[in-house]
Amino acid sequence: MGFNLSNFLNSKSKNRKMIDFQDLDHLDGLSISTVSANLYNAKRDDLVMFYFRDGANFASVYTKSKIVSENIKWNLNQKAKKIFSLIVNTRNANAFTGEQGYKSMQNIAEVISIELTNKQKLDDNEPKLIKPKNILFGSTGTIGEIFPLQKIISKIPELIKNIKYTQNKLIWMKAALGIMTTDTQPKMAMEECHIGNTRVKIYGIAKGSGMIHPDLATTLGYIFTDADLSNDVLKKLLNSNIETTFNAISCDGDTSTNDMVSIFSTSQSKHVKISGINDKNLKDFDISLNKVLLNLAKRVVADGEGSSKFITINVNDAKTEADAKKIAFSIGNSPLVKTAISGEDPNWGRVVMAIGKSQVSIKVNSLAIKFGKISVVKDGKIDPSYSEKDTADYMKNSDIEISVKIGTGKKSFTAYTMDLTKKYIEINADYRS
Amino acid sequence: MGFNLSNFLNSKSKNRKMIDFQDLDHLDGLSISTVSANLYNAKRDDLVMFYFRDGANFASVYTKSKIVSENIKWNLNQKAKKIFSLIVNTRNANAFTGEQGYKSMQNIAEVISIELTNKQKLDDNEPKLIKPKNILFGSTGTIGEIFPLQKIISKIPELIKNIKYTQNKLIWMKAALGIMTTDTQPKMAMEECHIGNTRVKIYGIAKGSGMIHPDLATTLGYIFTDADLSNDVLKKLLNSNIETTFNAISCDGDTSTNDMVSIFSTSQSKHVKISGINDKNLKDFDISLNKVLLNLAKRVVADGEGSSKFITINVNDAKTEADAKKIAFSIGNSPLVKTAISGEDPNWGRVVMAIGKSQVSIKVNSLAIKFGKISVVKDGKIDPSYSEKDTADYMKNSDIEISVKIGTGKKSFTAYTMDLTKKYIEINADYRS
Repeated sequence: MGFNLSNFLNSKSKNRKMIDFQDLDHLDGLSISTVSANLYNAKRDDLVMFYFRDGANFASVYTKSKIVSENIKWNLNQKAKKIFSLIVNTRNANAFTGEQGYKSMQNIAEVISIELTNKQKLDDNEPKLIKPKNILFGSTGTIGEIFPLQKIISKIPELIKNIKYTQNKLIWMKAALGIMTTDTQPKMAMEECHIGNTRVKIYGIAKGSGMIHPDLATTLGYIFTDADLSNDVLKKLLNSNIETTFNAISCDGDTSTNDMVSIFSTSQSKHVKISGINDKNLKDFDISLNKVLLNLAKRVVADGEGSSKFITINVNDAKTEADAKKIAFSIGNSPLVKTAISGEDPNWGRVVMAIGKSQVSIKVNSLAIKFGKISVVKDGKIDPSYSEKDTADYMKNSDIEISVKIGTGKKSFTAYTMDLTKKYIEINADYRS
Repeated sequence: MGFNLSNFLNSKSKNRKMIDFQDLDHLDGLSISTVSANLYNAKRDDLVMFYFRDGANFASVYTKSKIVSENIKWNLNQKAKKIFSLIVNTRNANAFTGEQGYKSMQNIAEVISIELTNKQKLDDNEPKLIKPKNILFGSTGTIGEIFPLQKIISKIPELIKNIKYTQNKLIWMKAALGIMTTDTQPKMAMEECHIGNTRVKIYGIAKGSGMIHPDLATTLGYIFTDADLSNDVLKKLLNSNIETTFNAISCDGDTSTNDMVSIFSTSQSKHVKISGINDKNLKDFDISLNKVLLNLAKRVVADGEGSSKFITINVNDAKTEADAKKIAFSIGNSPLVKTAISGEDPNWGRVVMAIGKSQVSIKVNSLAIKFGKISVVKDGKIDPSYSEKDTADYMKNSDIEISVKIGTGKKSFTAYTMDLTKKYIEINADYRS
C-alpha cells in the first residue's frame, strides 16, 4: 500500500512525543483482514475483520448515551461466551437506522458465521460451529443513513479469503487505517508483560478524532491479548482501567451513540492459571493494560480535530476522585480555557473560572495552580514570583500541563484534552457542505 | 455623546428582530450618573452609579460559581433593608483580588455613603442617613488584577455631581453603554403594566457578550421599577422568573465569578398595596417582569461573541422541567450542534447525539425533532416527508428554532443560545495578545 511510516510520523506534528508507533506483530489466535467495501467512494479499506480461530474471551464497555446504535444493540443482545469475529465498518454509524440497521447486523452475522464455519472445516482439525451470536460489530460514521448491507455482504468472501494465520506490522497498520473516519493518524499501541514467568502481549488499536466527527466522532478501541483470562476477569480489568484512560479524555464534551472499547483474549499463552481479579500474577498485566489503553486514548486526543496543543490537566488533593474528575473536565471542556491555550495566552483567570463553575466545594485559601512547573496561584493568591512573560513562553509548547491543588483531601484525577481552534470550527461547520 | 441609535442598530445585524430598542425614560425615585474613571485607557464611560433618592427595596441572584468575586462577597455580607446606590464598574472583575479587593468595596461604600448623605442634606426635606451597607456593587472585567481603588475614589465627586433627578433616554443609553465590556451592543428593555388600576414601569439594562469575555464574560442584569414591592416579594418574583430567562440562556456553558441580576423597586407608584407573592394584583407585573428579563437575556445571547445565528431550543413532552432543561442545554451547549448551525448544515444527527448524551431517559419511539416548522424526525424515525434541500434552505435564516418532543410527560423548557464560529475562537484566543 506504499505507506511510509516515517513520512507519516513526521507529517503532522513536530513536537509530539506520542506519535512514535510501536511495532505490533503476530499475536497467537488472532487473524486480521481488511477490504474496501466502497463505503467511502474512495480507494481505501473501510471494512475490517478480526478473526479468532479458536474463539476469544472478551469484555466490552459501550457509550453511556441514551440513544445507541443498532450494532451496539446487537452486541448487547448476544449472550455468547466466546467471540469468533469482530467486524468494524466505517462511513455509516448504523445509528437511527431502526429495523433495517438491526436486521443488517443479523444478516451479516449469519453469512459470516456460515462462511467461517466452512473455513474451520477446511483449515482446522477440530472445526468449531460458529454462530451469529459469536460475531460482534463496531460501526462509525454518519447516522441516520440506510445501512449499506449489500455492499458489506458482497465483500465477506474477499474478507475471509484474505485471512492469514500469521500477522505482521503491515496488517495491523491496515486495520488501524481501515477503521479511521476523519482521523489523520492510525492509532496503535502495545505492551509486553508477564503473567507468572510467561511473557504475554497486549496489542491495541483505536480510532477517534476529537470524539466529534463525522457527525458524532465515535471512539472505538480494541485490545487483543494472547493471555488466558476469563470473561469475568476481562470485564473487571476493563472496567477498572477505562476510568483513567478512555474516560479521562475529552475533546469537546460530546458523546457518540457508537462508542465502544473491547478486550479480547485468545488464551494461546500457556501461563499459570489466573484464579480471579485479585490474583497477584495479574498485577503486571493490569499495569500494562492501563498503559496500552492510556496510550491509545492520548493518541485520540492528540489527533483531535483541529487541535494544535495536547493538554494534560492534573487535579490533586481533592476530597474524592469524583470531585477531582469534575474539576478536571470543567477545565478541560471549557471553551474559554481551550481558546486561551490555542492563543498561547497564560490566562489563568479562566482556569479559576472553570474550577468555580464545576460546583465542587474547594478551599480557596489552599488553591494552587501551576502551568507546567510555573507556580501561578499559591495559597489562593497570585504567586508573588509569577511572571507573565515566563508563562507566556511556556504556552508556546505543544504539550501544555495544568496542575490544580484543591486542598480538600488526597484524591487526584488526570484528564487529557486538546485546544479549540478555528480549524475545529472549519472542519465541523463545513462537513457535508 | 454623538451616539446615533439608528446607525448602531443597523451596524451589526440585518435580520435580528430583537435589536430594536425601546425608549426608557424617567422612573420616579431613580437617578443615573456615569463617568469615565479611565479604567479602560479609552474615551468611554466605565463607572455607573444608580442612586435611589428615597432608597429602594431590592432582591438579587448571584453566580452559582464556587469562586465569587469580592464585590459579590460584599453584597452578600450587607444586611440592609434598603439600597441607596448600586455602583457598577467595568474592566476589573474584582475577583481573586483578596483583601485588597474587598477593602476597596468598603472604602468606596464609605466615601459614597458620606457624599450621598451630604447630598441628601442639601437636596431633601427629610434627609436620610446613608450607610456603607446601603451600597451594592457590580463588577465585570479581568480577574486577578489589583482593583483600581484610587481611580474610582477620585471620580466619586464627579459621579455625584452628575446626578439629575429627571432621567431620559440618553442617560439610560449611557448607563447601558457604561457597563459594557466586549459587548457590541447596549442592552435595554422595558415594559409597562398595571398593579390594580395603576400603571407601573419595569425598566432593565444588561451586559454580557456570550458569558465569556473578557476572561469570563460576566452577565449583569439590573431591573428597576417604580412599583411598591417588599424585599420578600421582589425576591420571590426574581427567583421564579430567572429560571426561564437568564438561566435559560447559554453561549458556551461557561459561568462567571461575577454574574449578578438584581431588581430594585423605588415604591414611588401609589398603587394598591400588595399583600404578598400570591396577590392577584401582581399577575400583570409578574408577566411583564418575565418579558423584560427574557428580552434582556435574549439580547445577551444575540450579542454572543462571534455569533452569526440566534438559536431557540424547545424541548417538549418531558417528564420533568429539569429533564427538559438538561436536554435543551445538552443540545445548546454541544459544539457539534453549534458548528453545524454556523455551517448552515441541517445535521440533525448531531441533535440526536446531544439528546442521547444528556443522560435523560427518553422514549425513542416517540422522539420528534423539528427544524423550524420542518418535521425531521417523527415517531423515532426520519420523517418520510423530510427534505434535506428544504431544511438546508431553512438553515440560512439568522434565527434557528429546534423543537424536540421527548414523549415521557408534559413538561417543557426553552433555551436560547448562539452558534459557534471561527470569530468566537479569534476573539477568545487572541484576547490579551
